[in-house]
Parts: sequence; structure tokens; C-alpha cells
Amino acid sequence: MTASSYDDGNVFAKILRGELPAERLYEDDATLAIMDIMPRGPGHCLVVPKAPARNILDVAPDSLSAVMATTQKLAHAVMKAFDADGVTIQQFNEPAGGQVVFHLHVHVIPRFDGTALKPHSGTMEDAAVLKANAERIRAAL
Amino acid sequence: MTASSYDDGNVFAKILRGELPAERLYEDDATLAIMDIMPRGPGHCLVVPKAPARNILDVAPDSLSAVMATTQKLAHAVMKAFDADGVTIQQFNEPAGGQVVFHLHVHVIPRFDGTALKPHSGTMEDAAVLKANAERIRAAL
Repeated sequence: MTASSYDDGNVFAKILRGELPAERLYEDDATLAIMDIMPRGPGHCLVVPKAPARNILDVAPDSLSAVMATTQKLAHAVMKAFDADGVTIQQFNEPAGGQVVFHLHVHVIPRFDGTALKPHSGTMEDAAVLKANAERIRAAL
Repeated sequence: MTASSYDDGNVFAKILRGELPAERLYEDDATLAIMDIMPRGPGHCLVVPKAPARNILDVAPDSLSAVMATTQKLAHAVMKAFDADGVTIQQFNEPAGGQVVFHLHVHVIPRFDGTALKPHSGTMEDAAVLKANAERIRAAL
């Protein structure tokens, strides 16, 4: 088992500290929800805990509970905002598990009948598109 | 948004009632963990709440917290049992979101460097293989 320590130089830590911008959707004492800048579909967003945690292997149970409560809120919001037919939740741990940024995050992806997820391309979405989608989600929360 | 009601004829409800067999890995007051019979890799298992819930859109927050606490336990167990390099967590909601069985479930899939997930083939794994993998996970819990 991998037991790497938390490195606070990751992009989500920087967003939490206000050192990097993000389309912020929702925030409470324990969690923050933001747009994914490389979405696998319109409205793809992320939920992160405010407390440092590399992934599910080291997160404190209370922090994980808070992340999932926010995930549920966002799942409802994206269903409403995009009139979606479903929602896919993904959470990746360690590089072999699909993790790229080493601060725990949960993917919330609205889904539509007959539409496959786009591959994780590494391409940044246009900022205006992210902003417009973020506004729809914020309005639905 | 889909607002279908819970149908207790689904396979996980039947497993919870003891009407269908399963390789049971872990159980507490609120949750049950079992092997996925159509695994996308060795050790692929599932966590379900005991309380009826169709998916993340209708689950009670306490039940979701309990499911995630058990998911974290199973994530550690599969890492140890299979000397895995990572773990992928997935949770699908409504058919467009990838859901096939309409009782909330979280997929816990051990991952290995350089090995992609097998496609969801709909093919049942050999019972002896499932049993052997279940024994490894139970020993690691």
C-alpha cells in the first residue's frame, strides 16, 4: 500500500488558499465545490474537503462524510441545472487508481441518455463555457 | 430529473434479505459489502446501505455516510489483500449515469500500475475465483 504524505503544493490546496482561481460553486465549513477545468461533459464538477487529505486512504471519516453530503447536493444541482438523465460519481486514488491531483476530490458528472463520457483529454475547457455552466449550477443549488 | 421510487425486487435487496447468495465481505448495522459478480478486475467489490435507497439522489445523509465509511474500510482492505497500487471508486445514478441495479451501491476496484479496467462485459466471474478473492479481502479487513 502506498503511504505518501500530503503535499500542500497541489492545485486544489492552492485554490483552497485562494492562490489560484476557480469557478466556485458551493462552500461550507468542511468542503468546497468547483468546476473541473478539463470536463468529461458539460457541468462536470468536483468536491474537495478543506482539511488536507491525499485521498480516500487517509481522509478523516468526518471529512469524507462532509464531502459526500456536498457531493449529494451537487448531484441534485447538476441534475436540475442541465435537466440531466443521470449522474456519475468517480473518486480516484493513487496514480494506478486514476488520481492526478493529490488532494482528495470527488467527480460529479451529469449524464445524458445516449451520450458517452468524453475521454479525459487533458484539454482545458473555454473559461466562458465553464463560467456559464457554473452559473447554471449555482442557480440550481 | 428522474424521481422513480424504490423497487425492493432488485438483486441487492434480495441479497440483503438473504434470498440470493453473495460473497459477503463485511457487515455492520447500516451497510453490507459483497463481491461484484461481474468484476472489472480482481477484487472488485461493492458497498450497499441496508436502508432502501435507489441511488445518491434519494439516500438519507446518514446512510450515505455509513456507506462511505465502509467504502474506506474496503479500500484499505483491497489495497492490502491484492498489494494494489491504487483504488478506483465509482457510483452510478440512473441508467444514463451507468446504474444497472436500482439499490445504491459503491464500486471499490483495486488497481494496478499499467493495467486498465476491464470493460463491463456482463460476464459472470467463476464462483471459485470470487470466493478466493473474497477470502483475501476478509483476511485483510
